[in-house]
Amino acid sequence: MGRATDRRTVVRIDLDAAAGGLRRRPDTLAAEEPLEIRVGPAGQRSRPPLAVTMRTPGDDLDLALGFLLTEGIIRTAEDVATARLCAGTDTPNTYNVVDVALAGGVPAPVTDPSRSFYTTSSCGVCGKASIDAVRTRSQFDLGLDPATVPAAVLAALPGRLRAAQRGFDRTGGLHAAGLFTRGGDLVAVREDVGRHNAVDKVVGWALREGRLPLRGHVLTVSGRASFELTQKAWMAGIPILAAVSAPSTLAVDLAEEAGMGLAAFVRGATMNVYAGSHRITHDGVPPG
Amino acid sequence: MGRATDRRTVVRIDLDAAAGGLRRRPDTLAAEEPLEIRVGPAGQRSRPPLAVTMRTPGDDLDLALGFLLTEGIIRTAEDVATARLCAGTDTPNTYNVVDVALAGGVPAPVTDPSRSFYTTSSCGVCGKASIDAVRTRSQFDLGLDPATVPAAVLAALPGRLRAAQRGFDRTGGLHAAGLFTRGGDLVAVREDVGRHNAVDKVVGWALREGRLPLRGHVLTVSGRASFELTQKAWMAGIPILAAVSAPSTLAVDLAEEAGMGLAAFVRGATMNVYAGSHRITHDGVPPG
Repeated sequence: MGRATDRRTVVRIDLDAAAGGLRRRPDTLAAEEPLEIRVGPAGQRSRPPLAVTMRTPGDDLDLALGFLLTEGIIRTAEDVATARLCAGTDTPNTYNVVDVALAGGVPAPVTDPSRSFYTTSSCGVCGKASIDAVRTRSQFDLGLDPATVPAAVLAALPGRLRAAQRGFDRTGGLHAAGLFTRGGDLVAVREDVGRHNAVDKVVGWALREGRLPLRGHVLTVSGRASFELTQKAWMAGIPILAAVSAPSTLAVDLAEEAGMGLAAFVRGATMNVYAGSHRITHDGVPPG
Repeated sequence: MGRATDRRTVVRIDLDAAAGGLRRRPDTLAAEEPLEIRVGPAGQRSRPPLAVTMRTPGDDLDLALGFLLTEGIIRTAEDVATARLCAGTDTPNTYNVVDVALAGGVPAPVTDPSRSFYTTSSCGVCGKASIDAVRTRSQFDLGLDPATVPAAVLAALPGRLRAAQRGFDRTGGLHAAGLFTRGGDLVAVREDVGRHNAVDKVVGWALREGRLPLRGHVLTVSGRASFELTQKAWMAGIPILAAVSAPSTLAVDLAEEAGMGLAAFVRGATMNVYAGSHRITHDGVPPG
């Protein structure tokens, strides 16, 4: 089984050091390996690959399930007949494939990207074709979830997320996604070289645990808030997203459309609320 | 035409502020929009989409050309007959599609991912299938490029890259890739919400300028060194990669295989050399 970190020998250079300033030493790195996700009907003998993601090994089944949920291919745990890590015959075994058999009645995804565009594409609908290609539709209406969170609770989450990261301190190279209650209690944390993978691992775990939609929860991410992460949060029914770093325009627009609270630059005692400001209270009053 | 940044109104919360601590104010964000890249023979009436990438608008033709080069679909600028931003009929026009017509004799990419796996895939070759799916083969042998760079020059590059970033200071949300000479002079810098896009924009520009392979150059990236970025550097014939943040295991392994110098955690007067230490000199002597 792959490991989340691995060691390499590095040459440390310190230009300010008096003598030499060169030192060979071991260093711990974030592991990165490809994971191929294969999806198809349970009856199919060999299922085709849907995607290859560069990820940090660990929680691979959750990663695959979270990916399928956030891509809109499955909606519930019952949509999956079986999911397994391929045992393989490599030496050493790489365990870099997850094979997912869909339950009866669940349509297999279209794996030919040209098929989904080709018949309708023309330059006249360029932009529309593009955004449609990446937009998924959530089965969860965040408007039905009245969850709010005090700003003081949000402010504490990045510190709690960082404290829960086992890999970051050793490697400096792992993103984290943490699921918290409205009270600020940590529910689940996952790390990965890819921030989208970290979120998928959290969502896949929640799917397996029967916790979707994640009403009343806050998702905290260690980096930026992109369109993709915001969409994944919506697909999992998460009403509030808090990012340590900057959001993008499309992340803000999508959060606004979803009715999701989006706070970013959550650092120390300050934060910026970019969308859904009714969800974030300060002195008991929403700033919206 | 899309802009690299855009403005939104945010609620700024400061928990430490004496009175209220809530303030509405405008904020500048990094723009993120989908770009669809269509590729096919020049004679084809309508070319199918190969990929959709979430990117910051700007230098979109370079992004598409760099993507095609680093994915191994084209090798030279002459492999492209025409490349154009689709004008579209949207209001406002989104310009979110680049249409690339390949020159005669250049094979169109296989856009059905299942086709490239399906016949050979079995669990026995799981790992192999996965890594093969993401590995491209560079036309450039870095072993033929004897370039070295003094550690003192490398140490100055992150600061020069940051100084050249127009968007970061305003948004806090843009990655950068900078191409430098061995002497530390900036040749080109590009910013994007996606770090891989920033590199593709630099590479696409170099392709158009007839500068490939980028012998004797250093690529500096504002974030981490992943497998993908290392591979893109190799595809462009760049012998030295310097990252401000951490590398992954696979980035180090690939750089070692390529004969590429890889320095990471390049911060202040210190750095770690993870691969190709013969390329980085200190007091005139390579640390290897």
